[in-house]
Amino acid sequence: MKVSLIILGPREYFNKKVPGLAVVIVGSRKDSQSYVNMKRKACAEAGIKSFDINLPEQVSETELISQVHELNANPEVHGILVQLPLPKHINEESVLNEIRIEKDVDGFHPLNIGKLAMKGREPLFQPCTPKGCLELLSRSGISVKGKRAVVVGRSNIVGLPVSLLLLKADATVSIVHSHTIDPESIVREADIVIAAAGQAMMENGPILLASFGKDLVIETKI
Amino acid sequence: MKVSLIILGPREYFNKKVPGLAVVIVGSRKDSQSYVNMKRKACAEAGIKSFDINLPEQVSETELISQVHELNANPEVHGILVQLPLPKHINEESVLNEIRIEKDVDGFHPLNIGKLAMKGREPLFQPCTPKGCLELLSRSGISVKGKRAVVVGRSNIVGLPVSLLLLKADATVSIVHSHTIDPESIVREADIVIAAAGQAMMENGPILLASFGKDLVIETKI
Repeated sequence: MKVSLIILGPREYFNKKVPGLAVVIVGSRKDSQSYVNMKRKACAEAGIKSFDINLPEQVSETELISQVHELNANPEVHGILVQLPLPKHINEESVLNEIRIEKDVDGFHPLNIGKLAMKGREPLFQPCTPKGCLELLSRSGISVKGKRAVVVGRSNIVGLPVSLLLLKADATVSIVHSHTIDPESIVREADIVIAAAGQAMMENGPILLASFGKDLVIETKI
Repeated sequence: MKVSLIILGPREYFNKKVPGLAVVIVGSRKDSQSYVNMKRKACAEAGIKSFDINLPEQVSETELISQVHELNANPEVHGILVQLPLPKHINEESVLNEIRIEKDVDGFHPLNIGKLAMKGREPLFQPCTPKGCLELLSRSGISVKGKRAVVVGRSNIVGLPVSLLLLKADATVSIVHSHTIDPESIVREADIVIAAAGQAMMENGPILLASFGKDLVIETKI
């Protein structure tokens, strides 16, 4: 099944203009390049103007931030994605904090994560992989409400926000991670398993084995 | 055991001035009055100047917000607590959003909750009941790391933030709530149970029964 998700802000926000998405990529990681290519293609399909900003591996944090500021100020750019991970000499938090909240289409700004977490609040944008996981379940006809969902991993990008989305959708959520003792026993009790952990937790297979017979969504790396 | 917690910002923030805490209370709910009295006493004990703002039940949202703005601007006030719940004609979110983040000592601002949730980020303030729960466990010599913790309830004020704090402290966290099927069976598997649900979930007793033999923290209402 092909699941293609384009997350836009409210239509009226664009006022019939062409929406614009800027993708900032630092260095030449192959996986990042692939992600960015897919995003460029999806933009073309959906009628979104895309802006590619390619910066060298050795770019300074200050230069990267001033690039973000330029995009914040550019009225043609409605969304900004800074491709992660960034090189080690750059503080990820300092850069992401500079993205204007209205352009934080990745939904990684703590204000968006806070609103995602809180009952009665809605973020401007939901992180795309977690949103995709719930969309996959929904399109597969799997209701989440009241189900026991186990999330493997608690990263800011997938594990944490998908746990929060599942909780908001009324699932009973358990989060297992690298410090969990006997994660397999918890996975075995689940109705739905979302595996979004690094290789280290998944490579030995027992968690996957424990997932047999469950509704399983795996976040894959390229 | 008496656990008395006074949460202050970094000492240097106060620059040897007397720290000030403003408590805004709308209407005359008895439980709110008791909480506010306890806060006033704790302030006196800790050398904090307290400001009580008592507003009538029928105060408008606009008037309440302009009161918050005044406190935001008052250099003698370093922390603002708006006692919840507010009367039904007032939108809680609209009021809480107006509190300056540096004065959000309740830690309920979505930016603080987002930072509480995210790995590698720290909120300016942690909500006090969740912080108190972890402090109680710590002072009782109970280590959280790797333990199975079950939180009953997912309110913005206790259940959600205490789940996030436990997760950050490396517990394996499960959250059960009003839509959970057979919450007792999940509670039975826990090492630590934090019960922070309304009466409806707790009054029949089976969750409490299932908690026997666990490290149990109950958030009590007055």
